[in-house]
Amino acid sequence: MKAYLISIGDELLIGQTINTNAAVIGSKLTEIQLKIGKTTIIADDIDEVKKEFQIAFNTSDLIVVTGGLGPTHDDITLKAVVDFFSTELVLNEDVLGDVEKLFKRRGREITDLNRKQAYVPKISEAIRNARGTAPGIWIEKEGKIFVVMPGVPYEMEDMMDKFVIPRLIEKLGGLSEFKYTKNLLTTGIPESFLFERLGNIEELLGKAKLAFLPNQFGVKMRLTVSGETEEMAKSNLEEIEQRIRAIVGRYIYGANNVSLEDVVSRLLIDRGLTVAVAESCTGGLISNRLTNIAGSSAFFERGMVTYSNAAKVENLKVNEDMIHEKGAVSLEIARQMAEGIRAVSMTDIGLAVTGIMGPDGGSDEKPVGLVYIGICDDKICTAKEFRFGDDRLLNKDRTSQAALDMLRRHLLGISYDE
Amino acid sequence: MKAYLISIGDELLIGQTINTNAAVIGSKLTEIQLKIGKTTIIADDIDEVKKEFQIAFNTSDLIVVTGGLGPTHDDITLKAVVDFFSTELVLNEDVLGDVEKLFKRRGREITDLNRKQAYVPKISEAIRNARGTAPGIWIEKEGKIFVVMPGVPYEMEDMMDKFVIPRLIEKLGGLSEFKYTKNLLTTGIPESFLFERLGNIEELLGKAKLAFLPNQFGVKMRLTVSGETEEMAKSNLEEIEQRIRAIVGRYIYGANNVSLEDVVSRLLIDRGLTVAVAESCTGGLISNRLTNIAGSSAFFERGMVTYSNAAKVENLKVNEDMIHEKGAVSLEIARQMAEGIRAVSMTDIGLAVTGIMGPDGGSDEKPVGLVYIGICDDKICTAKEFRFGDDRLLNKDRTSQAALDMLRRHLLGISYDE
Repeated sequence: MKAYLISIGDELLIGQTINTNAAVIGSKLTEIQLKIGKTTIIADDIDEVKKEFQIAFNTSDLIVVTGGLGPTHDDITLKAVVDFFSTELVLNEDVLGDVEKLFKRRGREITDLNRKQAYVPKISEAIRNARGTAPGIWIEKEGKIFVVMPGVPYEMEDMMDKFVIPRLIEKLGGLSEFKYTKNLLTTGIPESFLFERLGNIEELLGKAKLAFLPNQFGVKMRLTVSGETEEMAKSNLEEIEQRIRAIVGRYIYGANNVSLEDVVSRLLIDRGLTVAVAESCTGGLISNRLTNIAGSSAFFERGMVTYSNAAKVENLKVNEDMIHEKGAVSLEIARQMAEGIRAVSMTDIGLAVTGIMGPDGGSDEKPVGLVYIGICDDKICTAKEFRFGDDRLLNKDRTSQAALDMLRRHLLGISYDE
Repeated sequence: MKAYLISIGDELLIGQTINTNAAVIGSKLTEIQLKIGKTTIIADDIDEVKKEFQIAFNTSDLIVVTGGLGPTHDDITLKAVVDFFSTELVLNEDVLGDVEKLFKRRGREITDLNRKQAYVPKISEAIRNARGTAPGIWIEKEGKIFVVMPGVPYEMEDMMDKFVIPRLIEKLGGLSEFKYTKNLLTTGIPESFLFERLGNIEELLGKAKLAFLPNQFGVKMRLTVSGETEEMAKSNLEEIEQRIRAIVGRYIYGANNVSLEDVVSRLLIDRGLTVAVAESCTGGLISNRLTNIAGSSAFFERGMVTYSNAAKVENLKVNEDMIHEKGAVSLEIARQMAEGIRAVSMTDIGLAVTGIMGPDGGSDEKPVGLVYIGICDDKICTAKEFRFGDDRLLNKDRTSQAALDMLRRHLLGISYDE
């Protein structure tokens, strides 16, 4: 079954909205071993949309459309579907009930506009929307499946998980092809170095495929292996993974879609350890990432965004003379900040960052991108220098990643050096 | 001139990477009044890529391709370009110099793999890469323009700004069509309510177009107006904008691509005011957003992520008995946290949030999604209740947005209530 993804919306074409939906849908379909042939973005133009529906119908077995289902005048997808399938809209009582309930819960009065959203094409099955007002649509015709969902990401995602994916697995009669993909997530080493360290890549991989996907958080290695049986594909992948880990394992913090904060949180919880974070240049990003994890109060005690020198001295007991002597961005202050946050919060570990994120504030001696990260527990208390680039937001991301990775290495007993 | 955007990469199709490049390019081309006809994602398959090049060439005047230019074996774009244009690769000395310089700066040894990246197609002009090793490519043939850039977002973006956009404006002989688009950014009001408040939309808009684009941060209203002359389009847009602002102005925090933190920062700097932030449930997100602004040390003094009750009591002087009496998530504690952070940091304004982000920790009386936001200055000290949804990360985003909007309203003297 070959899939074709269509996202509808001028806002996507002109780049006012990033098309995250295509990625989410692509990922979920790939998980159930469907092949995505093509992904497109089409304007809010009923003729263009109908033309695209036709191309998709001619070349694919599964067509997944998102966007243009809202309650306002610029939402034309439903009209395009009705025209394309020569059908009509009919009221769906279940959907109307959902919409009424949702408004009641939010304590708002329902409007006629919202009631209108309970109408779906006659030939379709409605996909209930637990997170919004517009239902999705499931149509089967001439052996092909045609799915339409709202463009609001969390509404679409909920429909995919609860309705579309289970229904597709049912249609596929379970899963038949045996292809495994695993992402090995690295940080702290550039793409070309990773590639060279792996040595003879053809020999390493055999018939497997390995792709390198870099961004500011590190390099993702996507390993794909096919096999005649599920067992063969799986064991082949595991074998290659082990060989890769033997060479560059220290840089690999996790697999697939796990985040570094997921990994670090799990390590802290498993060991029953707590952490507190003092941030200067990252401005709260590290605390924010750690508290994105559900249940973070088990290991995260507090964070301090000690932006001013006064805050560093008052809240972290950093030595004021030392700030004047070495500068707030220095190895010594990073170490003192980590020591200070650990002491005031009485946690097992203190983690601290100080640096120059840019665009201003750099000098010849201390350029933009210079960062120091400190880490302390009851046995060691140390800091390390990093040099990043000249973009403020990328530098914040890179610094938060390097700090969380230093915490990971600390917890695993891996050296902080390369 | 009609544009066609092609992004190459299995990682985009299968959703391992979100296609932010298409949005960035779409937005930059739209700014110079080019029309984007279609955007597609194609697999790392040389035949599929060449086929897509042909479709784009047949239907468009400008083809912009990203991805697959890296140094590793899975990067096939250059090969596809060489085949498609029946040309060959030649060494570009300037590019080689760039690559050598970049490695020197980072203190790393250059590899043969990196040197190979200095080869570009003979019929092309190389686009220098200030942020990485792979150059871009500019080809003109049969009156059409064909641009290829790396998939790494910040490398591509730099090439767009410094080379592609200026060169396209030159080719267009300046800008000729008169179409204006402006985004009016709202928060704190749902899409359907915004739509209904605006009343008779046809009458309001005339020939203009208005699109509603909701996400967890609010609803973006994209207003598009065309005109025979630059003046006419502009003044027509301004007139409609004024009418919209007269009705729903209090919800509009900014225009175009400005963020709420940009707006709030500007207001604080203009008034010479400082702020400190105490966060419980948002875990540092509000501080992080404020410190994303370059020069934030002018107005942001410190932040505290008082996750534990101990931190609230020790760092913010919150009344411990009151926590036991009312609960850490209460109107009274939000107010005390705002008062406390203002007092300890000696800033003009204190902002604080406490809430239940989920998935756990909710009760019948205090469900997941319940949030209190406190704000204090030297005259007032108050707090307000909000009710959001059940998704942790969306709740963090919504809470940070509501808090920054409360600060905005405070600075502008707009009531916190709807």
